[in-house]
Amino acid sequence: MRNDGRKLDQLRNVDIVTDFTIHPEGSVLITVGNTKVICNASIEERVPPFMRGEGRGWITAEYSMLPRATEQRTIRESAKGKITGRTMEIQRLIGRALRAVVDLQKLGERTIWIDCDVIQADGGTRTASITGAFVAMVIAVGKLVEKGKIKELPITDFLAATSVGIDAELGEILDLNYIEDSSAQVDMNVIMTSTGKLVEVQGTGEEATFSRAELNQMLDLAEKGISSLIGHQKEVLGDLAVHVLENINKQEDSK
Amino acid sequence: MRNDGRKLDQLRNVDIVTDFTIHPEGSVLITVGNTKVICNASIEERVPPFMRGEGRGWITAEYSMLPRATEQRTIRESAKGKITGRTMEIQRLIGRALRAVVDLQKLGERTIWIDCDVIQADGGTRTASITGAFVAMVIAVGKLVEKGKIKELPITDFLAATSVGIDAELGEILDLNYIEDSSAQVDMNVIMTSTGKLVEVQGTGEEATFSRAELNQMLDLAEKGISSLIGHQKEVLGDLAVHVLENINKQEDSK
Amino acid sequence: MRNDGRKLDQLRNVDIVTDFTIHPEGSVLITVGNTKVICNASIEERVPPFMRGEGRGWITAEYSMLPRATEQRTIRESAKGKITGRTMEIQRLIGRALRAVVDLQKLGERTIWIDCDVIQADGGTRTASITGAFVAMVIAVGKLVEKGKIKELPITDFLAATSVGIDAELGEILDLNYIEDSSAQVDMNVIMTSTGKLVEVQGTGEEATFSRAELNQMLDLAEKGISSLIGHQKEVLGDLAVHVLENINKQEDSK
Amino acid sequence: MRNDGRKLDQLRNVDIVTDFTIHPEGSVLITVGNTKVICNASIEERVPPFMRGEGRGWITAEYSMLPRATEQRTIRESAKGKITGRTMEIQRLIGRALRAVVDLQKLGERTIWIDCDVIQADGGTRTASITGAFVAMVIAVGKLVEKGKIKELPITDFLAATSVGIDAELGEILDLNYIEDSSAQVDMNVIMTSTGKLVEVQGTGEEATFSRAELNQMLDLAEKGISSLIGHQKEVLGDLAVHVLENINKQEDSK
Amino acid sequence: MRNDGRKLDQLRNVDIVTDFTIHPEGSVLITVGNTKVICNASIEERVPPFMRGEGRGWITAEYSMLPRATEQRTIRESAKGKITGRTMEIQRLIGRALRAVVDLQKLGERTIWIDCDVIQADGGTRTASITGAFVAMVIAVGKLVEKGKIKELPITDFLAATSVGIDAELGEILDLNYIEDSSAQVDMNVIMTSTGKLVEVQGTGEEATFSRAELNQMLDLAEKGISSLIGHQKEVLGDLAVHVLENINKQEDSK
Amino acid sequence: MRNDGRKLDQLRNVDIVTDFTIHPEGSVLITVGNTKVICNASIEERVPPFMRGEGRGWITAEYSMLPRATEQRTIRESAKGKITGRTMEIQRLIGRALRAVVDLQKLGERTIWIDCDVIQADGGTRTASITGAFVAMVIAVGKLVEKGKIKELPITDFLAATSVGIDAELGEILDLNYIEDSSAQVDMNVIMTSTGKLVEVQGTGEEATFSRAELNQMLDLAEKGISSLIGHQKEVLGDLAVHVLENINKQEDSK
Repeated sequence: MRNDGRKLDQLRNVDIVTDFTIHPEGSVLITVGNTKVICNASIEERVPPFMRGEGRGWITAEYSMLPRATEQRTIRESAKGKITGRTMEIQRLIGRALRAVVDLQKLGERTIWIDCDVIQADGGTRTASITGAFVAMVIAVGKLVEKGKIKELPITDFLAATSVGIDAELGEILDLNYIEDSSAQVDMNVIMTSTGKLVEVQGTGEEATFSRAELNQMLDLAEKGISSLIGHQKEVLGDLAVHVLENINKQEDSK
Repeated sequence: MRNDGRKLDQLRNVDIVTDFTIHPEGSVLITVGNTKVICNASIEERVPPFMRGEGRGWITAEYSMLPRATEQRTIRESAKGKITGRTMEIQRLIGRALRAVVDLQKLGERTIWIDCDVIQADGGTRTASITGAFVAMVIAVGKLVEKGKIKELPITDFLAATSVGIDAELGEILDLNYIEDSSAQVDMNVIMTSTGKLVEVQGTGEEATFSRAELNQMLDLAEKGISSLIGHQKEVLGDLAVHVLENINKQEDSK
Repeated sequence: MRNDGRKLDQLRNVDIVTDFTIHPEGSVLITVGNTKVICNASIEERVPPFMRGEGRGWITAEYSMLPRATEQRTIRESAKGKITGRTMEIQRLIGRALRAVVDLQKLGERTIWIDCDVIQADGGTRTASITGAFVAMVIAVGKLVEKGKIKELPITDFLAATSVGIDAELGEILDLNYIEDSSAQVDMNVIMTSTGKLVEVQGTGEEATFSRAELNQMLDLAEKGISSLIGHQKEVLGDLAVHVLENINKQEDSK
Repeated sequence: MRNDGRKLDQLRNVDIVTDFTIHPEGSVLITVGNTKVICNASIEERVPPFMRGEGRGWITAEYSMLPRATEQRTIRESAKGKITGRTMEIQRLIGRALRAVVDLQKLGERTIWIDCDVIQADGGTRTASITGAFVAMVIAVGKLVEKGKIKELPITDFLAATSVGIDAELGEILDLNYIEDSSAQVDMNVIMTSTGKLVEVQGTGEEATFSRAELNQMLDLAEKGISSLIGHQKEVLGDLAVHVLENINKQEDSK
Repeated sequence: MRNDGRKLDQLRNVDIVTDFTIHPEGSVLITVGNTKVICNASIEERVPPFMRGEGRGWITAEYSMLPRATEQRTIRESAKGKITGRTMEIQRLIGRALRAVVDLQKLGERTIWIDCDVIQADGGTRTASITGAFVAMVIAVGKLVEKGKIKELPITDFLAATSVGIDAELGEILDLNYIEDSSAQVDMNVIMTSTGKLVEVQGTGEEATFSRAELNQMLDLAEKGISSLIGHQKEVLGDLAVHVLENINKQEDSK
Repeated sequence: MRNDGRKLDQLRNVDIVTDFTIHPEGSVLITVGNTKVICNASIEERVPPFMRGEGRGWITAEYSMLPRATEQRTIRESAKGKITGRTMEIQRLIGRALRAVVDLQKLGERTIWIDCDVIQADGGTRTASITGAFVAMVIAVGKLVEKGKIKELPITDFLAATSVGIDAELGEILDLNYIEDSSAQVDMNVIMTSTGKLVEVQGTGEEATFSRAELNQMLDLAEKGISSLIGHQKEVLGDLAVHVLENINKQEDSK
């Protein structure tokens, strides 16, 4: 039995609140167990200098934790004057993942800024950030369509993320909380689309290794969890979800 | 008439939620109109190096805004690698204000870290931070009493803050929202106790001046607003509020 | 009796030397008791990017102390690689105060840089900086009039600053030196014009509070001290002071 | 056909020079095609503060490129005053990977610093760094055994890394050079031991996705390449390789 | 004829004011032509970590210019957040030069901090800093003798510095002002003792070269100028100068 | 006898490898005894902002050491987030020295970036950097001539550097290794052309002084060593050396 009573292949409770704050174009509060992340999407009507004039859009992400999102207070990165390697890795991961399901050509020369601010942490903050950020991004981009700035929703598929790992006693488990994450021998973050395509796989043995069979079992668990997370996304996205499904079908047809 | 329909001496709607997140010793979400601030209080069992061995406690504060707390996205201070002058001023102000109503001797050699993170901004973020932080601090310190680490609650009075200002057409107004704040000729932040004592007065004419009569009218408004804010604090603090009132009475008696 | 033999409402000796160094457009050495500040004003023929094209000028200030301006050597901010919160607060205060008595429209699209460098400190360095910087600024702007770059002196009033405070034994006192400042219960910086208008009031109780009656008594003292400081300014400004007085009269007439 | 004439499953030419410079405890120049990295291992007789007193060792890595390791000159990170996210990711990856094959308990309270400096880059610099750093580390640790500071070589297995990817026309390919890397739809870095265990898998679709079948084909290629790289390592490690093989056998036996 | 009417081998007017400010152990204002530098010496009763327990003292220097010390305002290094290469070079030069005439053993485990702050610049600020800093240092160290902290003045010789250079038309010239320095083909800073010993020679051709004959003529000029500067130092040092002379004689005798 | 068996006026073994890496326009590995430096020259087709439109070129240098170039590992400047004073001094010195033998007018509006990266250090890294950088620069500039971008080689003379010093027992010595450098009383770096002209002389007594006679003996040694170093440069430069010699002759003739 897992420390919080879950089955090995069971996600924690998931809740996605939209329109969480009033200013951002897309604003989401995602809750996965005790992990809570505010995911805001902002539209900027220009791209970074290195992309100007190419007619394509860009998506970039920033990630931060409130000092007391954690059990022990952590020092603010602004107070330290620099961003940790962990934060940089996560920011790059979020941006890269979202770009995999956006047609940047159709987005046009504008930037979507994703801000993921963890207000409460209990493991899986980067995967919750991605799952929530996808919803905030679709809402923000939906407003561009509404205002007639772009003709169609440039989202090619749903996208969600979860963590899987190997526990010394339990074996492969889905959606690790903080205690499980701290003691796991192998930790893997998986980002997938609704059509079962992989966007990112990051499996890591900290002072340990894993076999290809174990890798496959972890991927099976991740696929199951992500499918459920995308179910939650579809529910809160409503009409926008329908548009994304239409986009997926069009791509299938054109193959 | 004010832009949001309020009377000149009317506060915006105030709401104070306690136990907002699970990790901090004191965790509050304060809402003043459209301004929302998470105020967390953390206890650290030691003081900064310059105070060691003196047997007194310390209170220090940090303040930050989420990038999309504002209408336009603002760059993270961690990304810039340095803290702005505005943030530094506010952090110092919050810490100084709270120290005015804490008996640092009775607190003992420990530090209270106050983290004020604005998740939605519409003017008055620093005063809302102080009003909310007071509640978070009392709750955190109350737990020290509960655990027997200190004998009595070292809080000497209630403390709240609001802004007042002078509008070119309306004259003196209470609790300015962002639009009012942007156009006010004079802006003043006032921090007061429940016994009507001033803790801090910061009146500023940006490219303007003000007379002593105007100063007095602004202070009258502030006094009224702060009295109401302290009413909200008493309500959510319950038994802890009773302890603070007893402390106030003891001080009166000993005079 | 005060620690240096002064009466409660007595300023320290004041001396303002103009043309202190040869390069700046306005260069002043102000001495207030043992506090000595070099105040230089520089004219730059453009404004910061965010103000370009508006036809208005800007005034900005920087403040620093030599490492041995103080009893104990303090580390240089350049060596630390960042500016302290205290310095930022003072810089913002000086700039804001001076802008209150300058018609930025008439100044035209140029920036006045104020550099206040404390070479010897004994309390009241920020208020001495403001009082000295006003003189340096008027001299520098006077040269713009002399060269025909602007038609009339865009200075709307005199401006000076002093500190007042409450001593546990002596009560309200004017112009605190370092020892008085260290032990005062309440410390207040007041910036006023020659016509008795307030530009900035910053009253602070560090681990203490003050009543509105005490606030008023401190303001009375400040008014007296500032009036005397403006007398010194008029003396060294000569003809330029006459121009400022004419400007004040014109404003009075036009009311 | 690939742009440099290789077969899809063919590594580039590999060369590992030991004792490349005189000062480090382990010094290696690894060449993989046109990619050349100096990998130095240094022994420090203490661990970072957070690990003191635990009796375990630590391995940490730093990575950098000479400005003209690349076709276009890149700005030094020391000149920019900060390390990029890419560098941080790579540094963390190298350290984590090496720790997976070291018995930190047997290493004792000392730190192995790995410095990977790329002097010429043509794709795969992070995987070449890991493959070369393993050799430098084993040589450095071997000297600890030689000097009697530790009893036996605390290396549990061989470790090497390579990149695999998916080319739009060619499909899955092994050991991408810079041009291949720039145009690949999917890029994956794989770190494995001689016993076929995975230490790290990082597969990324930049604006693309991949199926689990493709993932498996890439892993097959990686396994083949890493087996060959470990062959090179064994050759240059000589007697030390024998020790590692003995360690592997002991582990097998004890299962 | 030189641009300010001086002869080729003529120093500018020199003035050394002692006790310039009240707090430092040694405080000097040195004026060389239009160059003015405040040189303060502070005694700290400990040495940097790398020297602890060796029983020897240390001398270190910091150098800075007020923003309007120059014709055009220069940005503060504290505002930029880093120290320029030029400042670093000068700081290292001043410290190294002073250490050449102090018996660090006799100074004991304490640090002398030298702060050179240029308030007005017209060429030769680093050499004026050294000449003035020597006087401030001797005064500060003299107070250690006075208080009985050390037995005898640990100063082994006088030390002064000047610049020499080669002008395209005039040839070798002594003590270059800013205009001369800007157009000189070769610029050389020379630091010497009263006994004609060289402490530092830094000759630089910027886009030019110089012969050994020219080097020797410049050294002749420098020797003459430094002899005169040391005359000024002796005058203001009074009794302390007598002590230094006695130290020089003792060394001569012991040879 | 010197610690490595050399005569007082003997250089260490010198080796200059050209085309050391493939990307830079000029790439050199210089070996002087155990000191090894990679010197790369890059051509950028523009000059820094402050020089634009003047029709002249620019040469700038950066210098760094690998962490284990030294006996003890040194911390990376990129990890510290700032460049040391020593590095800044050396970078400025290399750039300034090379500019003395380049006709910047003939170079045209382009920048030559020199990167000197020390991979193994045993004293004299800055002088080896200059000697090697000269070769890399000539090769890079030679390619501009080859491609017809400039008409003739804008190099006016050969340039090399060495160190000389005074040992307490041996007296004046040439080309100090690390052990000699650490114990020398006086250390001097000399940069000269093939025609015996001085470009830079930096003689320093660390806690010591030196006479003009000693200065002259050190310069004699330096002249001898530099002549030999320039011999090595001529050898590896081949035809390019012939062009430089022709340039020198033309200048002689035109006198």
